Amino acid sequence: MKLGVGQMAPRVTENEGNIARLKAILKEADEKDIDVLVLPELLNSGYVFETEEEVEEAAESIPEGRASKLLLAWSEKDRLVVAGLCERADNGIFNSAAVFAKGNHVTTYRKIHLFQNEKDWFQPGNEEPPVVSYDGHRYGVMVCFDWAFPEVARILALKGAEVILHPANLVLPYCQRAMITRSIENGVFTATANRIGTERDVTFTGNSQITNPRGELLTQMSEEKAGVGWAEIKPEEALDKMMTDRNHLFTDRRPSLYSRITQVPDD
Amino acid sequence: MKLGVGQMAPRVTENEGNIARLKAILKEADEKDIDVLVLPELLNSGYVFETEEEVEEAAESIPEGRASKLLLAWSEKDRLVVAGLCERADNGIFNSAAVFAKGNHVTTYRKIHLFQNEKDWFQPGNEEPPVVSYDGHRYGVMVCFDWAFPEVARILALKGAEVILHPANLVLPYCQRAMITRSIENGVFTATANRIGTERDVTFTGNSQITNPRGELLTQMSEEKAGVGWAEIKPEEALDKMMTDRNHLFTDRRPSLYSRITQVPDD
Repeated sequence: MKLGVGQMAPRVTENEGNIARLKAILKEADEKDIDVLVLPELLNSGYVFETEEEVEEAAESIPEGRASKLLLAWSEKDRLVVAGLCERADNGIFNSAAVFAKGNHVTTYRKIHLFQNEKDWFQPGNEEPPVVSYDGHRYGVMVCFDWAFPEVARILALKGAEVILHPANLVLPYCQRAMITRSIENGVFTATANRIGTERDVTFTGNSQITNPRGELLTQMSEEKAGVGWAEIKPEEALDKMMTDRNHLFTDRRPSLYSRITQVPDD
Repeated sequence: MKLGVGQMAPRVTENEGNIARLKAILKEADEKDIDVLVLPELLNSGYVFETEEEVEEAAESIPEGRASKLLLAWSEKDRLVVAGLCERADNGIFNSAAVFAKGNHVTTYRKIHLFQNEKDWFQPGNEEPPVVSYDGHRYGVMVCFDWAFPEVARILALKGAEVILHPANLVLPYCQRAMITRSIENGVFTATANRIGTERDVTFTGNSQITNPRGELLTQMSEEKAGVGWAEIKPEEALDKMMTDRNHLFTDRRPSLYSRITQVPDD
């Protein structure tokens, strides 16, 4: 199975240009025969908003919007794609990751950990991150800053994700390395599709990557160049949770001792 | 404050030699004016047991045992030390980390995630890992393979640990890098004291290290040489949980969405 990560530079206010850039990436992914494709966060809108109007004009309904329709069409040839979209919904605007497979809109995850000024523009999601079944394997979805909360990848893995699909717009220098730890501690593949470029005063770090369950980098893209990176993987390798011949990453857990994780701390 | 990690090579069946090695490390830590010292796991016993007799002969009561008494004495000069000890208790033998400060036995943590053949020799601990207050700061304790379970460092940080003290006998290549992620995701210092040497067929990886809350390596020792590494730190830097000017590592968490973490999975 060919797992791909698309790296590109959406730009605020250039909604038409963002659609063109998405088309170019989908074409490259098509040429490279990608089976499961991850694209960056907020690819229909860009990231560094200055006004609510900019957000609202870029936001789209899922799956009726322009980017959604392109993604849906791309997925028709027995493929899965997850993409970060600025989503307009009845109850607000969300920083979402939409999953399309075989011509269907499978699910939308609304980011639960908002980063920096995203708090001005988006409502936080209020649902556990999802795992979707596709072609006999299970794929978890998280978005960008979710990486900093080990609970998210853990939950996805506990729900059976073999591969974590991770649209991102990264600016801090930590995530790519942290995803290696996420792979190892959960015994999963991860695919982080990051954006590139400088938008207003913010520079994104590229280096989109794919890791395997032993934390090895299967591919890592450049800091600056758009395109599609990929790796041939066997998702079922992630079903083996034995870190050693006597240590199972999940059954060795001690959930009865972890209750503090779900408690709201005192003020 | 001078935070130290002691690196040494305890050996199975050489109980007298292990005491001598401990004395040498404590002397070096004394000469280096270490304030808070972390020593490796199972330093009174070695690691690669072949018989129960080897474990039983090495195990000691805490704080009555020989290594405990040396540690207790070292801690008298307004210092804290945590050391991995093979512990004999009324209800079994444990892979423990004992904390001594200012001439007192403060607490003992019994490792809750046993690695490989440790499952043959030790009972697992059944209590949440502890945080101790010392000189106005808070120190969390975990042992070796606990690193692989992000819940442990998370719990320690949520309990207020500014510094995680981490005795270890590491054989896998993952932990040192993972502790960088533990630092970043929890905004804490970590001090991993690893052992060195080859015992029977097992080689330990050394590279004892200290990280700061931004995941920077403040010191990292060699793979093979015994001694005491250290870093001058201000533990209170770990009280600042702002990863950005608008992202607090703890209040940004969504504990109501993390309940799966504490559920026992179905068979």
